[in-house]
Amino acid sequence: MKADKILIPRWIIPVVPRGAVLEGHFLAIRDGRISAIAPISELADFEADEIEQLENCALMPGLINCHTHASMNLLRCVGPDLTTPQWLTECIWPIEGKLMSPEFVYQGALLGGAEMIHGGTTMCHDMYFYGAEAARGLRGNGLRVVEGAFVIGFPSKEYSGEAQCLQGAEKLFASAADDDLLSINLAPHAPYSVSKEALQASMQLAQTLDTTWQIHLSETDEERENAIKAFGCSPVEYLSRIGCLNESTAAVHCVSLSDRDIEILSKSGASVIHCPVSNMRLGCGASPVAKLLEAGVNTALGTDGAASACTLSMFEQMRTAGMIAKGFSKDPCALNVNQIIEMATINGAKALKSDERVGSLEIGKDADLIAIDLSRFVTVPVLDVLSCLVYAVEAQCVYQVWVKGGCVVKKQHKSAQKSDLGELLTKSDLMSWQNRVCEILQDGSR
Amino acid sequence: MKADKILIPRWIIPVVPRGAVLEGHFLAIRDGRISAIAPISELADFEADEIEQLENCALMPGLINCHTHASMNLLRCVGPDLTTPQWLTECIWPIEGKLMSPEFVYQGALLGGAEMIHGGTTMCHDMYFYGAEAARGLRGNGLRVVEGAFVIGFPSKEYSGEAQCLQGAEKLFASAADDDLLSINLAPHAPYSVSKEALQASMQLAQTLDTTWQIHLSETDEERENAIKAFGCSPVEYLSRIGCLNESTAAVHCVSLSDRDIEILSKSGASVIHCPVSNMRLGCGASPVAKLLEAGVNTALGTDGAASACTLSMFEQMRTAGMIAKGFSKDPCALNVNQIIEMATINGAKALKSDERVGSLEIGKDADLIAIDLSRFVTVPVLDVLSCLVYAVEAQCVYQVWVKGGCVVKKQHKSAQKSDLGELLTKSDLMSWQNRVCEILQDGSR
Repeated sequence: MKADKILIPRWIIPVVPRGAVLEGHFLAIRDGRISAIAPISELADFEADEIEQLENCALMPGLINCHTHASMNLLRCVGPDLTTPQWLTECIWPIEGKLMSPEFVYQGALLGGAEMIHGGTTMCHDMYFYGAEAARGLRGNGLRVVEGAFVIGFPSKEYSGEAQCLQGAEKLFASAADDDLLSINLAPHAPYSVSKEALQASMQLAQTLDTTWQIHLSETDEERENAIKAFGCSPVEYLSRIGCLNESTAAVHCVSLSDRDIEILSKSGASVIHCPVSNMRLGCGASPVAKLLEAGVNTALGTDGAASACTLSMFEQMRTAGMIAKGFSKDPCALNVNQIIEMATINGAKALKSDERVGSLEIGKDADLIAIDLSRFVTVPVLDVLSCLVYAVEAQCVYQVWVKGGCVVKKQHKSAQKSDLGELLTKSDLMSWQNRVCEILQDGSR
Repeated sequence: MKADKILIPRWIIPVVPRGAVLEGHFLAIRDGRISAIAPISELADFEADEIEQLENCALMPGLINCHTHASMNLLRCVGPDLTTPQWLTECIWPIEGKLMSPEFVYQGALLGGAEMIHGGTTMCHDMYFYGAEAARGLRGNGLRVVEGAFVIGFPSKEYSGEAQCLQGAEKLFASAADDDLLSINLAPHAPYSVSKEALQASMQLAQTLDTTWQIHLSETDEERENAIKAFGCSPVEYLSRIGCLNESTAAVHCVSLSDRDIEILSKSGASVIHCPVSNMRLGCGASPVAKLLEAGVNTALGTDGAASACTLSMFEQMRTAGMIAKGFSKDPCALNVNQIIEMATINGAKALKSDERVGSLEIGKDADLIAIDLSRFVTVPVLDVLSCLVYAVEAQCVYQVWVKGGCVVKKQHKSAQKSDLGELLTKSDLMSWQNRVCEILQDGSR
């Protein structure tokens, strides 16, 4: 068989089927798609323009960041340790008030996109003012992008009101028609900042345009309490009542949820986007993701903006999601590594209705791939590759990134750990200990 | 003035005084010690053998990991998502049972030490079997080490019982006499695994030898409940009653604490070592560190072993400590960045009774320093350097490390981000946006 490229990593993590870890396999790419995943013994059947050995690397689907405001990388880590009102009035709003412009949004998105793609994120959903500029910055990095057409009930530098936001959305949609890696969805800010009419109109527009609809929802207990005062019900129930909670909906945050909210979400077919780092740093608490998954809600991961999260690392989101699910519940079995990896890949693809093209390594899907170097000091030895990917890998371990078969990141030096220590840690010693430990684990009662 | 070496970073974070961030300053080293920290304008008064520009780097005290089992790096991330009894009986004990040996401990410590020093940790407290071998592995990396003489009430491959552990402690102590960067303290495992007599004898030995005494304490609610059954009081109160809670004591974990326990800890002068990542992953919960600090308890950070924590990154501990303190309490002001940085530096030095030599950048202290490259995609732009150090930096951002003035790590390539994107993100653009944001922040109501 003919292939454009063959990759031979140490491990392949296809994500589908759940928990699979392939060793001694290769992956072939043809015309931007995955054309084969097969045992090395079948390599002779293939004729490839290029064969690349990815020694000590794990190959997995590119990570999908389902919620960010990439331009806010220009506001990274600003104003730590403030109450939310202080943070907004003393940091975020003054800066946005003075700098908001197409150029600010473009430069910030370029920066946020660079952080994402170098850290293994191949697709993101972005939501901010001047969406066309944000998309241009992100696409400049080679990312696959869903840009949310932002709708907010307050006048901004970009639009004087909701009606103008909705008109802008149609223009944004049209402008993206020629770019196969860019799509547009609708992104109203929140139930408390957008009128019922504009929420409904944007949902209708999403359905007309056959796209998804993303909204911030129930981020804090206060938001929930205010909704009960204003609407007589929780924010989740409000969306449901006004016809805005369905299979197109991706509800971001969902920290403050009752059991009834979880039931409503489950029945609606909506996805939830969990942003654990931002939620924790802002003192919101944690979304009950283990419960959501158990109730059958498609739950994915997002970073939120760097102003609140400080990082667009999806590895940091995975690790934090796991830690807080276990720590809050005092249950070390809560949210296992398979669930977490799915949240960062296939569940994200589902939330963006892109799971036919991306989110797992399956034949016929687009080749959105990342190779992660697991021979770093922070990762060796690798006894359990899935656990290592979730709990030990740093964004900077990502070595190579492909989007639709095209290489968009290839770091010059696979390993940053050249030093005198390299001699101490001879590979043979390390590997022999790793192998002995693995043998005991396989041998035992497990 | 004469200096061996002068370092000129972008920022100096001395830690003492609290919150200080020096720009336009240099640091001079003479005979392994910090001999000056002064404005660049005074550079002409110095005569140095070597001057090093550390462009875009933050220079701060080396991080102090107050609790690890470095040899357990050979068991990194093993058995995720298991209950603690399963994890111990199916993973940890079978491996330790088959591999435990001086060579296993040495190789593991070499590996753990490499991860630590490359990630900016210059000093650690380690506790494991075969302490002399662990210390040899750690010292092989150039780390400053306090090796705990392990005492446990069960027979091990090393010792047949507590009496032999205590004899071993004296030998270990004697063997470290010639190494200025290695010291020994006493490290009984836990109140539930060591007899009252051996706890008291080890405390007496610590006081005779003028060293500190470290113990696992109140890691889980279950441990606390069992102590109440066995001793009629909490683990903290038990230690206090038997004369083992004083200024020499460093109590590790302290997750399950009553207000009375906090009061007892505060009055005793003991330190608490918070291991947030391990505590969360194992489903123990989180130590109430904000309350402990408020009660005046010296609280520091440790990683625990890589089997439970998956990482020996102190940056990961700092970030997690901040996130969970804010997220659990739903208070974004809880545990501020200054408190967190102190926990990782000067408070650690205090807990190991080494604060006269290390833990802050003060004239006369040993030059245990780290330079962190803040020009990475994960850190730019730097609007708030302290917040960035706590919430954005990854272990792999550490560029250079010195212990007692000697360079022990210098990475070959300061920045790993050479790629086509380097051209997109021209420094001038980035810097100009960074400066504009900083101006607005300084200008405003803050």
